[in-house]
Amino acid sequence: MDTMGRHVIAEMWDCNIDTLNDMGRIEQIFVNAALKAGAEVREVAFHKFAPQGVSGVVIISESHLTIHSFPEHGYASIDVYTCGDIIDPNVACDFISDALESKSCEKIEVPRGKGPVHVPKYNAL
Amino acid sequence: MDTMGRHVIAEMWDCNIDTLNDMGRIEQIFVNAALKAGAEVREVAFHKFAPQGVSGVVIISESHLTIHSFPEHGYASIDVYTCGDIIDPNVACDFISDALESKSCEKIEVPRGKGPVHVPKYNAL
Repeated sequence: MDTMGRHVIAEMWDCNIDTLNDMGRIEQIFVNAALKAGAEVREVAFHKFAPQGVSGVVIISESHLTIHSFPEHGYASIDVYTCGDIIDPNVACDFISDALESKSCEKIEVPRGKGPVHVPKYNAL
Repeated sequence: MDTMGRHVIAEMWDCNIDTLNDMGRIEQIFVNAALKAGAEVREVAFHKFAPQGVSGVVIISESHLTIHSFPEHGYASIDVYTCGDIIDPNVACDFISDALESKSCEKIEVPRGKGPVHVPKYNAL
């Protein structure tokens, strides 16, 4: 398998606070985001923190999707990393942004597995 | 909890090929890397691909560590993301680099949860 990958790092602000604190709902969103992008889900692991917040990952054949949510700040830290050139991580990222009802999403795409790490300027959505 | 976090993205080349294909060993390395940095392990999920390669994550109270290994290329794609300002993700990253016997590690540190994504130039080690 080629090492080439695309890693989207997204900062989602002003999200739906109830959703950010609902682990079952977030897990469902993330699995659906992976499937929407055409990825194959391999492992799912989520954790609910007390008093609030959710962390979790969906491992896909093509890499991973992760979230760390901070309901008290309306913020979710999102990574969508896909190997190969067939799947577009932005499809999953946009699906997540819509599902979390983020009103302010900033993201960058980092090429992976191509030698020195090179990062373009961020693109506000 | 403060949203501020530190996300180290590392490209590790020329690693030990046998280690890159040993899921049990990688899982052990990642748990130990988290503990070495002073993090609290919450969830562990790893997957072994056929014919080769391992993907996995350790979710910590302070965010996550992930790996995608490509033994056939001697390459491992590593992320170490820690929230707060107590834990240094570089401690875990360096531990992983040593354990994988990477002879060429490039990494960048991306501040998370602070507004627009800002990424410095990469630092070759």
